[in-house]
Amino acid sequence: MDKLNWGLIGGGKGSQIGPAHRIGAAIDGLFTLQAGALDIDAARGRDFAIGLGIAPERAYGDWQAMLANERGRLDLVTVATPNATHYPITKAFLEAGINVLCEKPMTVTVEQAEDIAATAARTGTICAVNYGYSGYALVRHMRAMVARGDLGRVRLIKAEFAHGFHADAADADNPRSRWRYNPAQAGISAVFADCGIHALHMASFIAGQQALELSADFVACLPGRLLEDDAMVNLRLDGGAVVRLWTSAVAIGRMHGLNIQVFGETGGLRWAQEWPNQLFWTPLGETTRILERGGPGLSPEADRASRVTMGHAEGMPLAFANIYADLAEVIAARKQGRTPDPLALHYPTAQDGLRSIAAIRAAVESAQSRGAWVDARPPSLRS
Amino acid sequence: MDKLNWGLIGGGKGSQIGPAHRIGAAIDGLFTLQAGALDIDAARGRDFAIGLGIAPERAYGDWQAMLANERGRLDLVTVATPNATHYPITKAFLEAGINVLCEKPMTVTVEQAEDIAATAARTGTICAVNYGYSGYALVRHMRAMVARGDLGRVRLIKAEFAHGFHADAADADNPRSRWRYNPAQAGISAVFADCGIHALHMASFIAGQQALELSADFVACLPGRLLEDDAMVNLRLDGGAVVRLWTSAVAIGRMHGLNIQVFGETGGLRWAQEWPNQLFWTPLGETTRILERGGPGLSPEADRASRVTMGHAEGMPLAFANIYADLAEVIAARKQGRTPDPLALHYPTAQDGLRSIAAIRAAVESAQSRGAWVDARPPSLRS
Amino acid sequence: MDKLNWGLIGGGKGSQIGPAHRIGAAIDGLFTLQAGALDIDAARGRDFAIGLGIAPERAYGDWQAMLANERGRLDLVTVATPNATHYPITKAFLEAGINVLCEKPMTVTVEQAEDIAATAARTGTICAVNYGYSGYALVRHMRAMVARGDLGRVRLIKAEFAHGFHADAADADNPRSRWRYNPAQAGISAVFADCGIHALHMASFIAGQQALELSADFVACLPGRLLEDDAMVNLRLDGGAVVRLWTSAVAIGRMHGLNIQVFGETGGLRWAQEWPNQLFWTPLGETTRILERGGPGLSPEADRASRVTMGHAEGMPLAFANIYADLAEVIAARKQGRTPDPLALHYPTAQDGLRSIAAIRAAVESAQSRGAWVDARPPSLRS
Amino acid sequence: MDKLNWGLIGGGKGSQIGPAHRIGAAIDGLFTLQAGALDIDAARGRDFAIGLGIAPERAYGDWQAMLANERGRLDLVTVATPNATHYPITKAFLEAGINVLCEKPMTVTVEQAEDIAATAARTGTICAVNYGYSGYALVRHMRAMVARGDLGRVRLIKAEFAHGFHADAADADNPRSRWRYNPAQAGISAVFADCGIHALHMASFIAGQQALELSADFVACLPGRLLEDDAMVNLRLDGGAVVRLWTSAVAIGRMHGLNIQVFGETGGLRWAQEWPNQLFWTPLGETTRILERGGPGLSPEADRASRVTMGHAEGMPLAFANIYADLAEVIAARKQGRTPDPLALHYPTAQDGLRSIAAIRAAVESAQSRGAWVDARPPSLRS
Repeated sequence: MDKLNWGLIGGGKGSQIGPAHRIGAAIDGLFTLQAGALDIDAARGRDFAIGLGIAPERAYGDWQAMLANERGRLDLVTVATPNATHYPITKAFLEAGINVLCEKPMTVTVEQAEDIAATAARTGTICAVNYGYSGYALVRHMRAMVARGDLGRVRLIKAEFAHGFHADAADADNPRSRWRYNPAQAGISAVFADCGIHALHMASFIAGQQALELSADFVACLPGRLLEDDAMVNLRLDGGAVVRLWTSAVAIGRMHGLNIQVFGETGGLRWAQEWPNQLFWTPLGETTRILERGGPGLSPEADRASRVTMGHAEGMPLAFANIYADLAEVIAARKQGRTPDPLALHYPTAQDGLRSIAAIRAAVESAQSRGAWVDARPPSLRS
Repeated sequence: MDKLNWGLIGGGKGSQIGPAHRIGAAIDGLFTLQAGALDIDAARGRDFAIGLGIAPERAYGDWQAMLANERGRLDLVTVATPNATHYPITKAFLEAGINVLCEKPMTVTVEQAEDIAATAARTGTICAVNYGYSGYALVRHMRAMVARGDLGRVRLIKAEFAHGFHADAADADNPRSRWRYNPAQAGISAVFADCGIHALHMASFIAGQQALELSADFVACLPGRLLEDDAMVNLRLDGGAVVRLWTSAVAIGRMHGLNIQVFGETGGLRWAQEWPNQLFWTPLGETTRILERGGPGLSPEADRASRVTMGHAEGMPLAFANIYADLAEVIAARKQGRTPDPLALHYPTAQDGLRSIAAIRAAVESAQSRGAWVDARPPSLRS
Repeated sequence: MDKLNWGLIGGGKGSQIGPAHRIGAAIDGLFTLQAGALDIDAARGRDFAIGLGIAPERAYGDWQAMLANERGRLDLVTVATPNATHYPITKAFLEAGINVLCEKPMTVTVEQAEDIAATAARTGTICAVNYGYSGYALVRHMRAMVARGDLGRVRLIKAEFAHGFHADAADADNPRSRWRYNPAQAGISAVFADCGIHALHMASFIAGQQALELSADFVACLPGRLLEDDAMVNLRLDGGAVVRLWTSAVAIGRMHGLNIQVFGETGGLRWAQEWPNQLFWTPLGETTRILERGGPGLSPEADRASRVTMGHAEGMPLAFANIYADLAEVIAARKQGRTPDPLALHYPTAQDGLRSIAAIRAAVESAQSRGAWVDARPPSLRS
Repeated sequence: MDKLNWGLIGGGKGSQIGPAHRIGAAIDGLFTLQAGALDIDAARGRDFAIGLGIAPERAYGDWQAMLANERGRLDLVTVATPNATHYPITKAFLEAGINVLCEKPMTVTVEQAEDIAATAARTGTICAVNYGYSGYALVRHMRAMVARGDLGRVRLIKAEFAHGFHADAADADNPRSRWRYNPAQAGISAVFADCGIHALHMASFIAGQQALELSADFVACLPGRLLEDDAMVNLRLDGGAVVRLWTSAVAIGRMHGLNIQVFGETGGLRWAQEWPNQLFWTPLGETTRILERGGPGLSPEADRASRVTMGHAEGMPLAFANIYADLAEVIAARKQGRTPDPLALHYPTAQDGLRSIAAIRAAVESAQSRGAWVDARPPSLRS
């Protein structure tokens, strides 16, 4: 297969997420980085792009110039800019018929998110949103186990994403973290929008169910913060599952605690992002089994998302690579006029992005009403 | 020291909790089991008591006969009968001036609990309640660390007690578990009163703070259940700490998931009851350290509660033994007219029992009001 | 059942192993501590004994006085004195017809060990040796699994007992540890005789096979030590199993690393003493299962050795209690003229003690011959 | 920097190691795969190469054709062919002045290995050997900790590499594994040469010490095997460290048990390949700390080998990528006539490959002499 042509917006020098995207896109050799507008500082962005091997004439100072020049030349653009710019950039590229992988959050407001989802549907362009942890092989296996009925009906999901990197009061004025708790820069939610929403996407992804309503308790543990640094959200999903979701930025000692437990009628699952190569599965009334990534007897969904043999750790960059591999297959299939491999249809879409924004708004509303239950669905998806 | 005279009510043949009490009381050789009314079936109870080495004339058919005959002869009575009988038995023995260790829940209603607390205060008799997990050496060390300021102000506690032993719908009509979800037998709450309340006591015990108000979400995951088999409770404690408490009986694969994480201004702690000999401690900005029970540098509170050397596991029976050792010290000090070792003053009291019952009632009330925030304090302790 | 009469020699004030024996004997209430000679310092020993509730006239200044006075009055004597005295004390009590539980090592020399084994056989008295870790419920389950064929033929055992408490060169002259590396006080072997031999007993206990021959590599990592502080021993057992046994006292960070892995034709097992309530079992070609102590489906051997329900940790004191419970059953059966419960016949005997001493001598001989293979059997057990 | 030109020999369709190399080389975008001779079946190899994006005229049917045509056009060739062919291919490319990364074992005999090492030295060409686990960030951190003296003198290393994938007697005749135990195909050693040697390289790599002499115990647990499927090797390194090395292919339940423990005068380290993002560090007399990959305070060596932030797992493909990144830096520096970053000088070299082959021969010789101690050094490195 010819390599696909890939563009990157944001993700310049010093970016945390940029390297993860470049590695994710590089791993399988399916994409060639052809164009980029990598930095708000145009000169710095062009320099960095050229350093990455992009031809000077395709190293742009801003995304508008890139859009003007790259129409028809790119198969996929990744948007990894500051949150508030996701909407205009994504919208513009979709309108130009260029497929987009947008970092989360897809937009700032629900109205924008509705617009993106509608734009993607109208233009027939792919809009993916990078809930990248859904790329892990064993996360896909959990989804497959639920889908094929191993757990019976899913009753209950315990999800959490806890870290402690914003717990230091002495560091609270550090510009690197302060903006996250300033509504002017961060919007309506801090740790729930930043971290907790990953856990919610994962719960929905695995259960195959969407949020109906929720009740949230937000607190700011550090004095002076205007947005929450710890949140507990209870949800009901549309298939009847209950979700208990905890997220925190003040949990000193926790690193990247994106953990999930899924309990159904006939079994329970446990998985933790920091040790992603093992999945604990307990069939009702039996002993717990340790499923190994790459091991025999896993689902085709898991096998497709594994590259190295059992017992060798695969980590987060390979989860991202799976999102890119899905997109490559779907894009290639379109170009070749064929049906894509159904196993590739697991990447998160604009619909997921929209649902996430709606859930964030609902959680904020609930938290402001002392935990009142609030409809968690975007307006367009209320039946 | 002469051994203390101990009596047991309930805990007969087939009881789960009876052996744990007998082992706990036996471990340090501080008590001699002298009298018992062990079973609702008088003959079976007397036989079992005699088999345990109780003299036939002190093996009673019911607690009333025991009370009538043992006045002045016992230093401590343990009450391990069905929940609804805790109140009359405990009250009667306290009135007779006999110290009591009562299984939890101390009573069924808040009014009864107020009465027990008042009776203990009025008679000057010791009334302890068996939140036995507070006996673990490293739980006591966490309490000591908080008390001496290692964590700064406690901001946040994540507590959980999750198991999966009531998840089987096919087994839901089994009399062994069905009564737990029947209000006529179990009262107003199932898994929160049975399990979650242990996690709440532990949170208060460690933080040295008491519940002020709470919001609860109760669900019955199994069809037909009238009481909750899964609950999430958010609390505010009187020292400002936020508690996130999850408890479940349908978490297939979880055994006895009484876990706690305590986050303060200057560090975080993590501990799990199933692996009770290690405590994970992360000072702010530093690496996580693994503290070993019995190891050097622990607090006097932890050292007093350790019996075997570091690296050898101690388990639940030794936690119970620590509660008994505390009581033995306090009872002996009274008999000898001396001040007890302050390190022994960590056993849970009637005040703890009362606060727990009030919290259960508040949680039920909140759950029935879709999570409205409810005062969690007993009437007598509202300032 | 009437309580059995128990005597203790050694285990006085400050002893590490004394409390473990007293707790182990107390847990099930099967023994009453009636007599003791607890200390080399006669007055201190008598005071301590009286403090434990022993009648003054049975609190002895030395074991000879105890023996003279207690003949016919005791059901069991535990010998927990310094190693060099195990032989004369054990021998004298056995000759007097009193059952003995002797701390390991049973004797210093193979000749003494042969004598003890022969004396026990001749007199028909019980002589047990406290390889106390064989009392753990899941260790007994491993033995039962091997015995009933779950693993097929045992091919390979990886056993280790590693700690780091003698790694500090600055502390090497501390009298508390120096004697262990001084042949005049410690005999011919240090860490292998002290720790490694537990791992070897456990391997034999589980496999149901005995050591045939061995090759040892001993090193003294700390300068100036005359005995080994680290050892690797390869063995062949009489049923064909290969054993790889590592033991160390300089493994900084290891606490009490008594771990064992057993590999057969049809499955593998892993267990660690520091987390004794879980056993990892991998049937050939299947996923690993986590077996929980107290859980359903374990063997009768494991069930007999469990006291509290699944999910509650049991620790080392309960393992010791299982040895005492075995002995109580066998002693009581003799007194009552009945056949003992066969599930009680798992305590280590003088034969085990003898085999251990022979293995230590063989390992020393091999280490002195640069790892030459040496017969590991005691003379009396070479066919 | 311009991308370097990379060629691949072996690693065709169905190869296990091929994808790991391609991913490793792709991750940082430093190399472009320009040429390949991927399969013994020429047509299949060419097809596969073209599928990978290699130009048809550089997709070769055999390595000789590739060599003839690519002289002067490639910066690095990776040799991932069957073991017996490593020598002629590596030798030929080195002679042509093309840098080589050779899969292990570098050669079959010590004489060949000496020749490769001499050839690399004579021609001034880079010859690296893929002991790829040395690329893990925390392995490099261990090496740095030892080098800067955190552990004092290294006394003892416990290394193991245990799996259970060759334990099934019913599968022993499966051609996929049978060849490994057939001397005609596999050479003089099976599991030690295949797996154990990785553990030995890691021990040397971390300790900065080389093997002096060794004693080995090899066994074939499965009947009919002519080569060992389990081995224990004791070594002495030239800096005084003792190594205990266990390797097995019959350890059912173990996946990829490449674990190492390093004990020095002032601290101990523990690391396991299956959970490579945490390192356990115990300073003498203190509690154990958990060091997180990507966390603050690690060495520059570790930082250079980390790509994603702390708390996100990195796995084996990124370890391989670190080897490739090292080589890219050194090759680029040569091309640019500058001194390479000293942090890149950690890739294993032909010297390491030579030492490994010598250690394998020594271990076989020792095992055949019942564990006699044998010089482990290659002839050219005996002083």
